Amino acid sequence: MAPAHRDGPAIVTGGAGAIGSAAVRALLARGVEVCAIDSLVGGRKEHLPHGAEAARFSFVESDVREPTAYQERFRGAAEIWHLAANPDIRRGTSDPRVDLENGTVATFHVLECARRHDVPRFFFSSSSAVYGLPTVFPTPESYGPLEPRSLYGGHKLAAEGMVAAYAHSYGLTAFVFRFANIIGPGMTHGVLIDFFDKLRRDPTTLEVLGDGHQAKSYLRTDECVEGMLVAGDRATDRVNVFNLGTTDRISVREIAEKVIAAHGGRARIAYTGGEVGWVGDVPQQLLAIDKIGHLGWHPKLTSAQAIDRTITEIADARKCAR
Amino acid sequence: MAPAHRDGPAIVTGGAGAIGSAAVRALLARGVEVCAIDSLVGGRKEHLPHGAEAARFSFVESDVREPTAYQERFRGAAEIWHLAANPDIRRGTSDPRVDLENGTVATFHVLECARRHDVPRFFFSSSSAVYGLPTVFPTPESYGPLEPRSLYGGHKLAAEGMVAAYAHSYGLTAFVFRFANIIGPGMTHGVLIDFFDKLRRDPTTLEVLGDGHQAKSYLRTDECVEGMLVAGDRATDRVNVFNLGTTDRISVREIAEKVIAAHGGRARIAYTGGEVGWVGDVPQQLLAIDKIGHLGWHPKLTSAQAIDRTITEIADARKCAR
Repeated sequence: MAPAHRDGPAIVTGGAGAIGSAAVRALLARGVEVCAIDSLVGGRKEHLPHGAEAARFSFVESDVREPTAYQERFRGAAEIWHLAANPDIRRGTSDPRVDLENGTVATFHVLECARRHDVPRFFFSSSSAVYGLPTVFPTPESYGPLEPRSLYGGHKLAAEGMVAAYAHSYGLTAFVFRFANIIGPGMTHGVLIDFFDKLRRDPTTLEVLGDGHQAKSYLRTDECVEGMLVAGDRATDRVNVFNLGTTDRISVREIAEKVIAAHGGRARIAYTGGEVGWVGDVPQQLLAIDKIGHLGWHPKLTSAQAIDRTITEIADARKCAR
Repeated sequence: MAPAHRDGPAIVTGGAGAIGSAAVRALLARGVEVCAIDSLVGGRKEHLPHGAEAARFSFVESDVREPTAYQERFRGAAEIWHLAANPDIRRGTSDPRVDLENGTVATFHVLECARRHDVPRFFFSSSSAVYGLPTVFPTPESYGPLEPRSLYGGHKLAAEGMVAAYAHSYGLTAFVFRFANIIGPGMTHGVLIDFFDKLRRDPTTLEVLGDGHQAKSYLRTDECVEGMLVAGDRATDRVNVFNLGTTDRISVREIAEKVIAAHGGRARIAYTGGEVGWVGDVPQQLLAIDKIGHLGWHPKLTSAQAIDRTITEIADARKCAR
């Protein structure tokens, strides 16, 4: 059984990132004191709370691989949300050390700080990438064997292994979330950002990696964090693994058409061809979300709606920036 | 599909260990040129082949975390057998860095050498420890989610994640083996060595961790290596995960009684109590071996027979050593 909650701050690594800053805000809104840790390499300081919102908030600018800079903040903490990660999945293929360092070794340091300070609860952002290309759709948490295709996914699985071992060996309670594609304000990578950037460079042609049939689920950042909170409130095992996604998926072709429409509708699509967009890519992804559904969390937006809302946000932000 | 084999040497990390030296011998017996890499911290030089047996054998004394010492040996190699590991599962709990370094980081270096030299086949010794305490017995390879209980198991899962990602990202073929308890000549750790050492210190009382009901499968080293060779000859996927064990299990109590009988039969057993022998221990283990069975490999000895044979070997060796 999970130990009782204790009062105390929440530590959020990657707290200046897209998902991390949404988590910081949601925890503050619950009245929890929050300390964010972020290297500001992928994250951005403007994502952090300011003004009245920042009364119970503190920030440590540090890479999570440098625990001496932040380990004292773990003293008395009630929970860790370890969300820091390499946000660029494709980069791992050309530089295999990136995900070892930013994924596995970084997670080791955060787990060690949690262990030394007896922090009772550990939230970890894993990924649907741990499944690789499964043979079962929608894919349940019980699927195996896990064969990640990207180094990013390989090191997410590596971190899951360490998190489970720490939970069982040292008595912390773990919440592990296998995310679908998470999209929303503040994101710096992913298919939508890619497409907008490409159209800015060449408004006549949108190059799409693969054949356009790749189809995945997309979940908004705020809904993702809400799912994590529901799991933290209601799950009772020592290690709690949950998929977080939607019940539908949307193809790359549909996304490309939506982005082109938002951009004036004049570009043609040029597919590079092939079933897989890039080395390490998983062409089909649809997660079973019954397990978190039994705890009462259900996504409000479909993948298509999440994509629409995010496209509108990006288009508006880029208009303002001109 | 798996790429065609290529001719060339096999590299065996941990080649001076109990399983590694059995692998070296089996590969040499097939006419394969073998290069063993071992730090000689856990492994022993006397386990390595000598005399006529050593004609096609070479040895590099190096920790696998120091790839500069051995990476050139990967040039032209046909396959890697990455068997080096921390042999002392319990040590990880008191020193969490051991399995990170000797498990995950070491495996990263070996994978990197394999990638740089385009070595087509990668054999990896994982462990039943990746399952933690499963809810299904016998446990199939498809079981999930994986919740290792020991740091050793956590880092075996971590390495599995990296191995699968390298296979899918860089085109090597992977053979991943989840071992039951492997016993045989040359082993330096485990329940049998523990019990013999305890009886040497105190011939009247054998302290047994736990309540004696913990029950696991035991497979002999030579049978284990034979299973790996069968998988390498006949499995055809990009990533091939196989359990290797027996279809029966034997309790700690039965093992204790057998060791006491071999030691003169005078000691009484003192149980420390509890369902779990030590932090990170998995009290029940029985692997489904149908998958490797379909390829034609079946263990010849039961767990009880494997224990009996190994007890006789240890008792004989200790008589000679007196």
